[in-house]
Amino acid sequence: MTTTLETPNPTDSVRAAYARIAACGRPEVWIRLRAEVDALADAARVEARIAAGEVLPLAGTVFAVKDNIDVAGLPTTAACPEFAYIPEVSSPAVTRLSAAGAVVLGKTNLDQFATGLVGTRSPYGIVRAAQYPERVAGGSSSGSGAAVGLGLVDFALGTDTAGSGRVPAAFNGVVGIKPTIGLVPTLGVVPACADFDCVTVLAPTVALAGRVMSIMIGPDAADPRSRTWPADVVLSAPARPRVGVPIDAQLEVLSDSYRRSFAATVDLATESGMELVRVDVAPLLEAARLLYDGALVAERFDAVGDFVVAHPDATLDPTVEAIVRAAAHKPAHEFVHDTGILVTAKHHAAALFADVDALLLPTTTEHPLVEDVLADTVETNRRLGTFTNFCNLLDMASVAVPAVGGPGESFGVMTVTAAFGDQVALDIAARLAGSDTAVLAPEVGVRLAVFGAHLRGQPLHHQLQALGARFERPVSTTDDYLMVRLDSKPPKPGLVHVPGGAGRSLPGELYRISPAGLGAFLAALPAPMALTAMTLADGTTAVGFTCTPAAAATGVDITDFGGWRSFLSGALA
Amino acid sequence: MTTTLETPNPTDSVRAAYARIAACGRPEVWIRLRAEVDALADAARVEARIAAGEVLPLAGTVFAVKDNIDVAGLPTTAACPEFAYIPEVSSPAVTRLSAAGAVVLGKTNLDQFATGLVGTRSPYGIVRAAQYPERVAGGSSSGSGAAVGLGLVDFALGTDTAGSGRVPAAFNGVVGIKPTIGLVPTLGVVPACADFDCVTVLAPTVALAGRVMSIMIGPDAADPRSRTWPADVVLSAPARPRVGVPIDAQLEVLSDSYRRSFAATVDLATESGMELVRVDVAPLLEAARLLYDGALVAERFDAVGDFVVAHPDATLDPTVEAIVRAAAHKPAHEFVHDTGILVTAKHHAAALFADVDALLLPTTTEHPLVEDVLADTVETNRRLGTFTNFCNLLDMASVAVPAVGGPGESFGVMTVTAAFGDQVALDIAARLAGSDTAVLAPEVGVRLAVFGAHLRGQPLHHQLQALGARFERPVSTTDDYLMVRLDSKPPKPGLVHVPGGAGRSLPGELYRISPAGLGAFLAALPAPMALTAMTLADGTTAVGFTCTPAAAATGVDITDFGGWRSFLSGALA
Repeated sequence: MTTTLETPNPTDSVRAAYARIAACGRPEVWIRLRAEVDALADAARVEARIAAGEVLPLAGTVFAVKDNIDVAGLPTTAACPEFAYIPEVSSPAVTRLSAAGAVVLGKTNLDQFATGLVGTRSPYGIVRAAQYPERVAGGSSSGSGAAVGLGLVDFALGTDTAGSGRVPAAFNGVVGIKPTIGLVPTLGVVPACADFDCVTVLAPTVALAGRVMSIMIGPDAADPRSRTWPADVVLSAPARPRVGVPIDAQLEVLSDSYRRSFAATVDLATESGMELVRVDVAPLLEAARLLYDGALVAERFDAVGDFVVAHPDATLDPTVEAIVRAAAHKPAHEFVHDTGILVTAKHHAAALFADVDALLLPTTTEHPLVEDVLADTVETNRRLGTFTNFCNLLDMASVAVPAVGGPGESFGVMTVTAAFGDQVALDIAARLAGSDTAVLAPEVGVRLAVFGAHLRGQPLHHQLQALGARFERPVSTTDDYLMVRLDSKPPKPGLVHVPGGAGRSLPGELYRISPAGLGAFLAALPAPMALTAMTLADGTTAVGFTCTPAAAATGVDITDFGGWRSFLSGALA
Repeated sequence: MTTTLETPNPTDSVRAAYARIAACGRPEVWIRLRAEVDALADAARVEARIAAGEVLPLAGTVFAVKDNIDVAGLPTTAACPEFAYIPEVSSPAVTRLSAAGAVVLGKTNLDQFATGLVGTRSPYGIVRAAQYPERVAGGSSSGSGAAVGLGLVDFALGTDTAGSGRVPAAFNGVVGIKPTIGLVPTLGVVPACADFDCVTVLAPTVALAGRVMSIMIGPDAADPRSRTWPADVVLSAPARPRVGVPIDAQLEVLSDSYRRSFAATVDLATESGMELVRVDVAPLLEAARLLYDGALVAERFDAVGDFVVAHPDATLDPTVEAIVRAAAHKPAHEFVHDTGILVTAKHHAAALFADVDALLLPTTTEHPLVEDVLADTVETNRRLGTFTNFCNLLDMASVAVPAVGGPGESFGVMTVTAAFGDQVALDIAARLAGSDTAVLAPEVGVRLAVFGAHLRGQPLHHQLQALGARFERPVSTTDDYLMVRLDSKPPKPGLVHVPGGAGRSLPGELYRISPAGLGAFLAALPAPMALTAMTLADGTTAVGFTCTPAAAATGVDITDFGGWRSFLSGALA
């Protein structure tokens, strides 16, 4: 991260948050709010660390944790009182955020065992939407969504198996990032479907959500489900992303107002310079239906079935209990069969993502009233998951952002990419939301400095975009470089290091590119261009351009123009 | 592929093969032997293509196909007569081999529905080991193993879900390559466990098996299970591979003679220059037991259960029928639970493969007599799969090679790597077998030419090995290069292109390296070294070395030494 939050005083942040929580009158948001004195003690420890010289990127922030994620010393209930246990160790995401200076305020309400997208399935109370309390907050990360939507905390952790981190984002007017499965460790998370669970973040802006996510991401040696970025990871959305939108027939499931709101969002995306194309997402929607209608629901029995069977008197939500108990009886060969359907659907999705950088989808179908959910929780829940259910089944990344909805309801959309397209999903979501973006994996990739035809607006810049290179910032060389004009097509400059010689500092651009991207870039680079290590004016190093000695000797010295763009405009003038 | 087979006349090859088949008296090898006239017609077509100028790398070879793999126009039985259907299209591997000039002679016997490692579970007869007919040929690719072991065909196709391509290799004294799942399409293959099935090759030598496999590998757009090489694929085993061998307690399952034979193989491997280390493979062996003892066997019901249930009068092997029918009743949540155990076992395996380049394991535990298998097929089968069962469950690659066994029995060992380590497994297997190796994916990777400290035997050569670069051959530059001695540590040469100038042709080495490997190599390369495109003396291009213009100008000209190695020895002389 190259920027830092404005850092309010941690103690002040905690006090202000508790005052907001007391004032807002939404106790059902929390299953366990910590005693203020305990949070203040954490804040004091953060201050002591800052005083000792530590740089804490999240100092001064407070956050809430969905109560299916372990926080050491606080009970984990998963919204079932009899299920509760007190973990000794926090889930890695919580540990990493605390290490970065954020203070936990408490554990939030959820649809029991993270089974639901509604926010009504909890013995700890129905969670209502932040701005529209007659409507549901969505689930299963209901309390976390509402806590952020109400402004009680800076951000909150959720989980997302079938949409649980994104539907509450939509219903509470906030951002929700669902990373690729395995990027954030799930140790210390009560499983809903162990093969498909993700830890998510909910925050008011894409920028903050991304920065928090960047701290949560990273393998944990003890987590067998941890995954790392591939060697050819795409580190940036292109300047003009190509974005797929479902064909009209696949949007008929939306409420009238949601359909209008989605159409308006699509128009705005087009106006913002994205290339929108209609795509058929039928195989994805079919995969979504497998989650509850097929045998995959057996994942939920594996997760909590033994507990449910062994505790007939536990305080179970009747809908959740019915789902879990029914899941006991699915045969394994049907599970295998359904997994085969997922394989085929993934294959369809891969073909889709070969054509578009991301999908743009409505996060959910409607914003239901609490009473309507209570009247028909199963059907409503099923409909709400139309566009979210398939993401983890098909190993995708997604970012949900608020969008302009109809009166009296919240509305949101989400970007969806293939696995490890997280940065692309975030970049496009940021553009949709009018937010700054964030760098999810600042440590990933190689620094590459360019000075000529690869600069933005120049004829070979598209090569960097095609390889997923990410623009970092303008840079300049140390003051001992010459620039020569090479006899190439398109015209290119050659950069010549003249240590202690009669050079000057020349302007360029710094990119971050995957190792495989850099290898492919070099493999396609024609002579006399060459790549070498160079030191920049700010003292950092990067892979940068030079040219072969023979080309340097025969090129025309254009150093005095002070850079390639200046040379081009000078030459044209 | 840089070499070609000695090309016998295709028609002669076919005639000779049918003569061998007639002479050997093993009709049980085949479920369907094509009429010789049909194979001769294929041979004539191959000859016509050669006459028309086509280069056919497998011209003059004949092969057999396991009868669970489709060959257009021949029935596919999977060793169950009532299951038979006549496919219109061949499986992609068959199509590719035919396109390369190989001629199919027929379909081979197998343990019914590829369920078994014994070779006795077929209504088409018990297949006996090629060299030791009182012992089993192993399964399920029994006929393919025996056909190659008896020298009836040049190579044969098998399949391998739990060892079916490797156990018959061991029992028939031949090589079996089980690629990473998905590298060879499984379209047109009767599934045994669709998530874990692979098409394999059996051949007399590692070199031929590898060359055939290189033709079979490659995605098929219609196969949702196709996978492609990752951007950081390792393209070569290191010169001194580090190889893990199970601790003694884990070898107690071996027969006495197999234990002695394996110990002798380990000694030979050590003498050949490999670094052998003892490793604990307990998590792998536990995963292996899940295949039949747990719920994963439901994969087999998904594959053929509907057929078995619908055809009570079909000619079913009683053991196979019992396995398939029992698999109907496994609950899905147990399947999920067992999948979780696999995830943990994969995590253990990843830690193992972070420490060793490959595992060296006995392919199976003993070479049983036919009568012993018939007396207790289930327990014998289970034991035989001790070391093969886990490979596909844990997404590994493996190559089985013959080794010296005790009197009156065949013995073999296998190398095992993580997914996509296929080339490493093959390279090490070739060394064990005293064979040439083959390049599995000649199209993968980038060509990199080196001329100084990265040459074999030079101080930075280890960098290429660590990145999995593969030595291709000695090369030389065009005759317009100078070499200068740079003032670096370790000493390095700078290569300077002098077009039309007073240069000469200088010797180097050509490597193939993954795109991510090349990117990492460049990112770690210190100035004044630089990489650029260069044309070699043979007219091909590669990424090659140069140095910055300033370094070229100040380096001492050592061109007259005729290369870096000559300079070093001259300087020492």
